[in-house]
Amino acid sequence: MLTRAQIDRVVGAALAEDAPWGDLTSEYLIPQGATATADLVAREPGVFSGGAVFEAAFRLTDAATRVTLHVADGAAFASGDVLATVAGPARGVLTAERIGLNFVQRMSGIATLTRRYVAEVAGTGARIADTRKTTPGLRAFERHAVVSGGGHNHRFSLSDAVMAKDNHLGVLTADGSSVTVALRTALARLPHTTHVEVEVDRLDQIEPVLAAGTGSRGIGTIMLDNFSLDDLRTGVAQIAGRATVEASGGVSLDTVRAIAATGVDVISVGALTHSARALDLGLDLRIEP
Amino acid sequence: MLTRAQIDRVVGAALAEDAPWGDLTSEYLIPQGATATADLVAREPGVFSGGAVFEAAFRLTDAATRVTLHVADGAAFASGDVLATVAGPARGVLTAERIGLNFVQRMSGIATLTRRYVAEVAGTGARIADTRKTTPGLRAFERHAVVSGGGHNHRFSLSDAVMAKDNHLGVLTADGSSVTVALRTALARLPHTTHVEVEVDRLDQIEPVLAAGTGSRGIGTIMLDNFSLDDLRTGVAQIAGRATVEASGGVSLDTVRAIAATGVDVISVGALTHSARALDLGLDLRIEP
Amino acid sequence: MLTRAQIDRVVGAALAEDAPWGDLTSEYLIPQGATATADLVAREPGVFSGGAVFEAAFRLTDAATRVTLHVADGAAFASGDVLATVAGPARGVLTAERIGLNFVQRMSGIATLTRRYVAEVAGTGARIADTRKTTPGLRAFERHAVVSGGGHNHRFSLSDAVMAKDNHLGVLTADGSSVTVALRTALARLPHTTHVEVEVDRLDQIEPVLAAGTGSRGIGTIMLDNFSLDDLRTGVAQIAGRATVEASGGVSLDTVRAIAATGVDVISVGALTHSARALDLGLDLRIEP
Amino acid sequence: MLTRAQIDRVVGAALAEDAPWGDLTSEYLIPQGATATADLVAREPGVFSGGAVFEAAFRLTDAATRVTLHVADGAAFASGDVLATVAGPARGVLTAERIGLNFVQRMSGIATLTRRYVAEVAGTGARIADTRKTTPGLRAFERHAVVSGGGHNHRFSLSDAVMAKDNHLGVLTADGSSVTVALRTALARLPHTTHVEVEVDRLDQIEPVLAAGTGSRGIGTIMLDNFSLDDLRTGVAQIAGRATVEASGGVSLDTVRAIAATGVDVISVGALTHSARALDLGLDLRIEP
Amino acid sequence: MLTRAQIDRVVGAALAEDAPWGDLTSEYLIPQGATATADLVAREPGVFSGGAVFEAAFRLTDAATRVTLHVADGAAFASGDVLATVAGPARGVLTAERIGLNFVQRMSGIATLTRRYVAEVAGTGARIADTRKTTPGLRAFERHAVVSGGGHNHRFSLSDAVMAKDNHLGVLTADGSSVTVALRTALARLPHTTHVEVEVDRLDQIEPVLAAGTGSRGIGTIMLDNFSLDDLRTGVAQIAGRATVEASGGVSLDTVRAIAATGVDVISVGALTHSARALDLGLDLRIEP
Amino acid sequence: MLTRAQIDRVVGAALAEDAPWGDLTSEYLIPQGATATADLVAREPGVFSGGAVFEAAFRLTDAATRVTLHVADGAAFASGDVLATVAGPARGVLTAERIGLNFVQRMSGIATLTRRYVAEVAGTGARIADTRKTTPGLRAFERHAVVSGGGHNHRFSLSDAVMAKDNHLGVLTADGSSVTVALRTALARLPHTTHVEVEVDRLDQIEPVLAAGTGSRGIGTIMLDNFSLDDLRTGVAQIAGRATVEASGGVSLDTVRAIAATGVDVISVGALTHSARALDLGLDLRIEP
Repeated sequence: MLTRAQIDRVVGAALAEDAPWGDLTSEYLIPQGATATADLVAREPGVFSGGAVFEAAFRLTDAATRVTLHVADGAAFASGDVLATVAGPARGVLTAERIGLNFVQRMSGIATLTRRYVAEVAGTGARIADTRKTTPGLRAFERHAVVSGGGHNHRFSLSDAVMAKDNHLGVLTADGSSVTVALRTALARLPHTTHVEVEVDRLDQIEPVLAAGTGSRGIGTIMLDNFSLDDLRTGVAQIAGRATVEASGGVSLDTVRAIAATGVDVISVGALTHSARALDLGLDLRIEP
Repeated sequence: MLTRAQIDRVVGAALAEDAPWGDLTSEYLIPQGATATADLVAREPGVFSGGAVFEAAFRLTDAATRVTLHVADGAAFASGDVLATVAGPARGVLTAERIGLNFVQRMSGIATLTRRYVAEVAGTGARIADTRKTTPGLRAFERHAVVSGGGHNHRFSLSDAVMAKDNHLGVLTADGSSVTVALRTALARLPHTTHVEVEVDRLDQIEPVLAAGTGSRGIGTIMLDNFSLDDLRTGVAQIAGRATVEASGGVSLDTVRAIAATGVDVISVGALTHSARALDLGLDLRIEP
Repeated sequence: MLTRAQIDRVVGAALAEDAPWGDLTSEYLIPQGATATADLVAREPGVFSGGAVFEAAFRLTDAATRVTLHVADGAAFASGDVLATVAGPARGVLTAERIGLNFVQRMSGIATLTRRYVAEVAGTGARIADTRKTTPGLRAFERHAVVSGGGHNHRFSLSDAVMAKDNHLGVLTADGSSVTVALRTALARLPHTTHVEVEVDRLDQIEPVLAAGTGSRGIGTIMLDNFSLDDLRTGVAQIAGRATVEASGGVSLDTVRAIAATGVDVISVGALTHSARALDLGLDLRIEP
Repeated sequence: MLTRAQIDRVVGAALAEDAPWGDLTSEYLIPQGATATADLVAREPGVFSGGAVFEAAFRLTDAATRVTLHVADGAAFASGDVLATVAGPARGVLTAERIGLNFVQRMSGIATLTRRYVAEVAGTGARIADTRKTTPGLRAFERHAVVSGGGHNHRFSLSDAVMAKDNHLGVLTADGSSVTVALRTALARLPHTTHVEVEVDRLDQIEPVLAAGTGSRGIGTIMLDNFSLDDLRTGVAQIAGRATVEASGGVSLDTVRAIAATGVDVISVGALTHSARALDLGLDLRIEP
Repeated sequence: MLTRAQIDRVVGAALAEDAPWGDLTSEYLIPQGATATADLVAREPGVFSGGAVFEAAFRLTDAATRVTLHVADGAAFASGDVLATVAGPARGVLTAERIGLNFVQRMSGIATLTRRYVAEVAGTGARIADTRKTTPGLRAFERHAVVSGGGHNHRFSLSDAVMAKDNHLGVLTADGSSVTVALRTALARLPHTTHVEVEVDRLDQIEPVLAAGTGSRGIGTIMLDNFSLDDLRTGVAQIAGRATVEASGGVSLDTVRAIAATGVDVISVGALTHSARALDLGLDLRIEP
Repeated sequence: MLTRAQIDRVVGAALAEDAPWGDLTSEYLIPQGATATADLVAREPGVFSGGAVFEAAFRLTDAATRVTLHVADGAAFASGDVLATVAGPARGVLTAERIGLNFVQRMSGIATLTRRYVAEVAGTGARIADTRKTTPGLRAFERHAVVSGGGHNHRFSLSDAVMAKDNHLGVLTADGSSVTVALRTALARLPHTTHVEVEVDRLDQIEPVLAAGTGSRGIGTIMLDNFSLDDLRTGVAQIAGRATVEASGGVSLDTVRAIAATGVDVISVGALTHSARALDLGLDLRIEP
């Protein structure tokens, strides 16, 4: 859940960036007393996300503006649907328009793309998860959008799960210790609520990793990085439920179903946040001079 | 130019987002005294942007880290080129890695895409310009990257140029006044340093707009929105140098050269910032335990 | 337009500065339950500016306080007029009093001084414009006040128009190129929405500058810096409408009309913001213990 | 790891709070040119934490001040040991003294108390963990201090692990579903890196909770809240390694060893952060007028 | 008085710290539409402080939540009393619960401990005062709580009173001047509203200090640091009303009454803020799914 | 003393305001590699203040810039004196120029005006003090400048001294109590380090105020507001050293000496900060292309 304080902080900063000295166009072209009513209209079908953020853009510009949301975050909509209605002083509505749209288009774009991935893997046991490849400053918003789309969140930051990669394992074993021993030592020291995920590049790396320990305090997830479908299947079989299996790399809408069919538990998709297209949502304005 | 204070503020916030309680992986898997040397290596050719931002990510994590930049913003590089070298305590380098890469990949991605557009229009009189469709909080960085790529900046915010669209003109003429008279009235009131751009959807809208006045205090730019190539050519001929001609809508790497060939002065491309792919730059790490 | 978020950020910071640990006087001398009604009264005639900022000072101190504005920004008032009424818990009203007054006195002072300059040039074609000589942190508020007074804004920051001075031209021509060629090169590279103003100190500098180009993408404004009235007249004649003519330097209420009569388009007056006297507005308090 | 940006942000805010208008005492009683050398001396034995934070207090007051740390975070020291040396302009050293001490005393106090708890349970399999009962704004610093003391961190925030209590389970089963089924449903939806901990008040609650699932994606930790030693022992036996066992409630230096001896894995101690006494560290100053 | 802006800034930051990505437990275990009513109930008797801060925690999480306060800051309550009632969306109430409790428990703990000290000295002429040993970032809140408990504030920061100690006096007299002359010189230069307090360690230091001058611009307070009861009595007699007498050091609930009985005017107690136990206040939740 | 953190925070915000997207003029007209050396030169005599603030403007724009200060805060200088030298990349120097000058001109203007007032009262016993009429956000800087000029600071904020005026006394006595009794009650409750100043409008108000008590815990200062010179003399005689006497109202460079000659202790001058003219300091630039 995005808190009110969090939304207001980020949206207030966005307004300060886009209108440090106001919106010259609306101030010089629109009469002071004019009022506006505006419908947020879907120009294409999709999944909604960011309603509260959209609302804040208008409220933080002019507190006399009212936003009514017609759909909840996570709802699917058709092209032409009216998703929200804004009413207030015309200058303020025009000033906030781009910021409001920017957030809701981006968030709904992520939600919509996520839902497509989720739909592709329907019926398999795999879930679609996001990554840390989010926009600096907007991670909470983009992660919220992934959930709106039916996706799952991966670790939120460097602080809430371990993800051991080549580099880490290389250092851990630089003194000649085996991966197994090295990981076991680290596991023993980590916070007990920290999930541990280890990335492997080859099938033969799996067993030494799992040998460090499994279960609630052991290796929680094995990430099979850039594996072929065959190797994914083999990996899943080899891991055999001792840890969650995550597939990563080479994931697209074209390949995701086949990857899911290999039996992996999680498919992480950086594209959900770093490549989602802003959804085409528009603001149909009626201004009363 | 991005100021030091500006870079540190934005990068500091990004670090706070990505490591609110530190990087568990490096803290629990990497020995305290280990040092790292890391090369920022291009995995694909491109145009560099964001060197100072990359530097800040490491310095703001651990002040004992040194970053040496091997190329300047705006320089083209080949796949395999080493663009910068980082040296410092291994934990800090690993903690800052993703944030540093995130910025430089995004900015170099924008610079690289921009340069492709710029190359497409080489030899025509058209320039490639960005739009306000930037990431909230990162506009200064993304606009800097467009310049690194050889593109041009459009207005920076709602506060530094007028962009009159349908909505505005509709209100201006709601009392029965002509567009010409209404714009002339607005022009007379605007700050004398404010450039005025008017968006038109049809050829017959051009003349009434220009009739409001041209020259340094008149209509500075006519934006021809979603015009066919034929209409663009006709528009350019009609405007005949009285104002800058900007083409917008339907611009892609496939279409941009034909658009430029119509004789327009500016082609604004939202995709430069909202659709640029993060460039594939990697950090090759050598850790000394 | 000042946004709600912008006003609250600046006024909140001012309150934090003036009452980090509260207002000892009201806390120790005024009973907890006392309520206050206060009229904002003009002690001298003037032009109002800063109503929304005044309101915020009281609301951000104690949300139970209500402020009713009786005049709009830009309205002229007579000595003795009641401009706004505040009602709420007495301690909060007294705590916020100085901050609220401070902003509205400063802003109304700027608006009032601006209107005097504007009145002086009435009937000429000249407009009164502000400068960047504003108070750090308060530029948006002071620029808003200039507009309340009937003045015009000049460029808002270093980022939204070019102002080329001696130093810049000196560097541009250090390699032996002429001013004309050097400026033409710069014009060709600048954002198309960037207005270009060049400051000249002598009449013979005008022609080489204009020769760089005029019209919407050329030299937009020539600033005649510290010119005599005769030279201003000659400059206006020489420029002959090819660029906006701005007079700067030596402007006071005594000289401004004569300057305007020379035919210049814009007279920039640093005094509007850096020398405006805070207007004498007082808060007439009635406290109910 | 605390980042440089993080330390500077928090310490800078603390300085602003303690010296909004400077330190009157040093400014009016100490000559401008006076220099100071100051040793941070332990007045009692303990465990050090907060060296980098201590350094920042002086550097952010006057950049000409140098701080040399003689011990690393986590090092034990005896009464009388010199832990750090500060050298710089006397006014700045005196201004920063209290803030610098405040942080290092608090952090070393937490580290020292933690080490006492850790020593108490030496040789058992139990670890000492902190809780979310930290000081608002200082959690990262206090958690770092716990680690300096040899303790372990629990979840860092509401965002990085699930902790289900009575209230949650009550709602989950309000529709008549069993705890087992309800938890199983929630487990299936949670991020795969999210550790799930469930608090139980009675022994008979354990089995239905564990029945929801165990292993890396199941119930990771059972918290036995306010259990008697006998019940703890029974609980440990019953859980039998299927989940981590955490004891909470009634933990003090007097009781912790007996609790650890029951076989629990984790003992969470709110007192580490909410009741640690600031350690007695002093600054021995030599001022050269 | 804590201003609304001040409360919202600090509480907003605390929420950002505790729920950067929301509260996973309530989001995954509590249905979206569920509502909660919660009573803030005293689990032990005490003195209330922090009502407005408690309210803000819920409002800033979800603006649809309403908090009704049943007691005012400074009111005493019995175990079992309901101090406030919260009503709103269940997820938001659960998310804000710990932050809201954290502040109100800490502040009420300080108020309650303060009241115990105040009760101990009842009937003597001594007052109980706080110190600068507050939590970084929370001083205004903790000082407010001391007043809720009937205590008095000491200087708020380094900027609002002089407190001369050994170090300062040592430097002042390094050139051979007497303490009397040195202090007199400083007094003559200080802001006229600055209270001057001098800390002495021995009885024979009192007279030279007072000889620097007394009255409204002289030495305002003599702090007798770590004096025996006998010496305190002698000191009070010796000072004889020429300055306020403050006792400091060795103050506890056991010793405070005897110290007060010596005739000192002020007893400063660092423990009020640095050692107050968080009061046991709980939130009794009723959730409607 | 202004802390480094404080200076950097305020100057960084000023840079963000003045160059949100950089300085277009220097970026488009000055070559990337050009370097600049710049002397800060006095165009008129005055008193210096703000050296560290000036330095920060350049450092925070481009860390490669070096600023050498040739005079200390508080030093008098003649027209033509070089006060500081700046050396660094030309673009950065030009970008920071206005902000650096803005602060140092404003602060030196305050210091210079203050010194003129101080010189006027030389040889009398009166001191010149500032007021709370400072620029929002810049009070610490402006107060520092007053001290640079030889003036004294008055209370810094609402939180560090009581200033009782008509309104307060009116409420205090609304229940029929005398001013004497009412003030005595308030005095008894105030923090012992809080200086109490009472503003009176007529001679007959003095005695009842003083009757509330004098000395270190009594009425510290009587402010004689808008008194004639005769009444000031009478007031001074009447108060007779029992409290500090402050004169306020109608103070100018023309009247201040006569006011000082009446024997008052403090003359508070709002004009020091609200009406000081920015001093004419210029930056003489030499740019190497």
